[in-house]
Amino acid sequence: MDHITQVLLQLFSILVAAKMGNEIFRRLGQPTVVGEILGGVIAGPALLGVYAVNAETELFAEIGVVLLLFQVGLETRLHDLLRVGRTALAVGILGVLLPFAGGFAAAELAGGDLSLAIFLAAALTATSVGITSNVLRDLGALNTQSGRIILGAAVIDDVLAIMILSVATGVAAGSFAITNVLSLLLVAVLFIAVVVIGGTRILRRRRSILTDPEFAETPLLPGMIVMLGLAALASLIGLAAIIGAFLAGMVVGESSERHALEAEVAPVAAFFTPFFFGFIGAQVDLAALANVESLMLLLGITALAVASKFVGAFVGALGQGRRRAALIGWGMVPRGEVGIVVAGLGLSTGAIQSEIYSVVVGMAILTTLVVPPLLPMLVRRAEGHRDPIVEEDGPSPGIEDDDDGVQG
Amino acid sequence: MDHITQVLLQLFSILVAAKMGNEIFRRLGQPTVVGEILGGVIAGPALLGVYAVNAETELFAEIGVVLLLFQVGLETRLHDLLRVGRTALAVGILGVLLPFAGGFAAAELAGGDLSLAIFLAAALTATSVGITSNVLRDLGALNTQSGRIILGAAVIDDVLAIMILSVATGVAAGSFAITNVLSLLLVAVLFIAVVVIGGTRILRRRRSILTDPEFAETPLLPGMIVMLGLAALASLIGLAAIIGAFLAGMVVGESSERHALEAEVAPVAAFFTPFFFGFIGAQVDLAALANVESLMLLLGITALAVASKFVGAFVGALGQGRRRAALIGWGMVPRGEVGIVVAGLGLSTGAIQSEIYSVVVGMAILTTLVVPPLLPMLVRRAEGHRDPIVEEDGPSPGIEDDDDGVQG
Repeated sequence: MDHITQVLLQLFSILVAAKMGNEIFRRLGQPTVVGEILGGVIAGPALLGVYAVNAETELFAEIGVVLLLFQVGLETRLHDLLRVGRTALAVGILGVLLPFAGGFAAAELAGGDLSLAIFLAAALTATSVGITSNVLRDLGALNTQSGRIILGAAVIDDVLAIMILSVATGVAAGSFAITNVLSLLLVAVLFIAVVVIGGTRILRRRRSILTDPEFAETPLLPGMIVMLGLAALASLIGLAAIIGAFLAGMVVGESSERHALEAEVAPVAAFFTPFFFGFIGAQVDLAALANVESLMLLLGITALAVASKFVGAFVGALGQGRRRAALIGWGMVPRGEVGIVVAGLGLSTGAIQSEIYSVVVGMAILTTLVVPPLLPMLVRRAEGHRDPIVEEDGPSPGIEDDDDGVQG
Repeated sequence: MDHITQVLLQLFSILVAAKMGNEIFRRLGQPTVVGEILGGVIAGPALLGVYAVNAETELFAEIGVVLLLFQVGLETRLHDLLRVGRTALAVGILGVLLPFAGGFAAAELAGGDLSLAIFLAAALTATSVGITSNVLRDLGALNTQSGRIILGAAVIDDVLAIMILSVATGVAAGSFAITNVLSLLLVAVLFIAVVVIGGTRILRRRRSILTDPEFAETPLLPGMIVMLGLAALASLIGLAAIIGAFLAGMVVGESSERHALEAEVAPVAAFFTPFFFGFIGAQVDLAALANVESLMLLLGITALAVASKFVGAFVGALGQGRRRAALIGWGMVPRGEVGIVVAGLGLSTGAIQSEIYSVVVGMAILTTLVVPPLLPMLVRRAEGHRDPIVEEDGPSPGIEDDDDGVQG
């Protein structure tokens, strides 16, 4: 079997597995995203082994979550985000500090060396906003106060995470320097500020810019170019690609073609996102966890990860009332692919061993699986009796009238 | 720079390059697909070197042409194709025989050994229908008599091509057996018959099958599952993946959700196809062709490829009148990615050397570049003064009313 045939079969099988998981969980009234991840566990190396973790399937997963955050950005307006800026900052900072301190203390108490402690702590810090924002989107709660705080906090969270990661790799390589960390911070903040302020200014001045080129019969391809460009750039300076995609969506959302673009991005994202959820599931390594010691370690670290992130974010958001703070704290819990990436980096630098790696990956997936089931209830309690279909100022992501208003 | 960052940058740069080529050619009134391929030449290893030929970019290109042929299948009805079956058979067979004979004779005259002659002949035979069907689609000429004959002939062409390729690899490996070739033929014909007859029967009996699952809020994902599955299966038995995708589109096109599906597939295909065109361009190796001898060889082989395919297909289609025969003959000329794949196989088995490989790849790309500019004129002459927008029974691929008729 040649290589491209193999990859086509893998993409086919993960799509079938994720959608079968979706189907079953939908019928059971459970969150479909959990069904899609479990579909990936079953089709992946852990059980059936039809779906492999390789460069191509990772790329499809990455583009899936990039598109997801681009969509979220399209539905988010900058001024709404700035309005919740102080709370988001508090949630982001406390939601990073507590897991870091918890992870560091736990590793030191267990007698690990400094670089293991720092890597474990780093893997516990960074939130993956893909899962939560997907569920909030399905619930129509992205444009609530809590939804905006979660998105803002996720951006701040990621800036802090790259600083911690730079400390961790510096310590592991024995070349730690505070100036490196500060210059990273400067570059990250500059990138975000320039993209957001410069981008929205350009778009506001020329709102038809996406369909101005002759090739742009619709705004889709200019939108995809901005998305890929900013995702690559964010990734290049050490931020997560999804942060670049989120900023791209927010900037491009200022365009007059925003609704047409949302309608066109919807099927592209619908095609790609199952590969993201399935890929997360495919990274489970059941064999490595098949002993009591590893399982206890997994449960302990997961409990620490959930509790420390929840408490940190909850305290940061308390000014919004306990119900909103609970939703925000819970929404920040998933570590998802970010935790897996950090663990992988720790493995490659030799700071953590393969047993701990499997445990950290398991933690990242478990924190992602526990969140969706409780979110609908927390959204109802925090944001009142609003109809989940009607949003404040975002259109539903369907195909809309003004879609015919595209120009050549 | 980590790997995923690199790939994101490559995807970004090829999208920009292809669309800049598109923009320039559109303003010059030239075929945009040629502009996109040349964009790939410029961004690719031949010139700027920002875009690399690797597993990930090849996958995006492959999914691009798979989606293209799926779209073409959606717009093609089986009974229309069967109505032109005899002409398509004649075009397919003669359009393979002449290039094969020409390639074989030329290699033998030049003193090449048997396996070189067979591989060169094989690389000259197979038509890549992606380029032509894309241009015909833009011209609204897919559902003309000529368009259907080209599509039918492309399927037959591909069946013959895998037989020839099996002969070629058998001879190169010194293990040629006629029974192998015949069993390949049997499997290929069976696959096509079962998919087409069985598939359309299932769909006609239950036209809502695509949106029957709970997860299928729209027909997109069930459609993508059928497409990837049949593309993988076709590829598994040795046919081109795009033939499986074309059959999948034709079968799924019997669904009651066909128009909704077409509207949803359009943006997904629009996102992916530039990667296909750009990837073709990126395979040009200018350095290998930078001497008079190679250039003369390239021009000679290209002239042979164009003339033999054109004359073979033209003679096969003569019953349709000279004007249609000219359109059909010209439409079968592009070798595109199929010629490149065959040449790569010849290179890996040692049957052809790297210098000849570069020449064959150059031929495949040149045959692809020369076709689009003449097609609009040939379509006008062959299919009369029909308005290119109005199609006989296919809807234009825009977003349509009944798109709201999707069900959960």
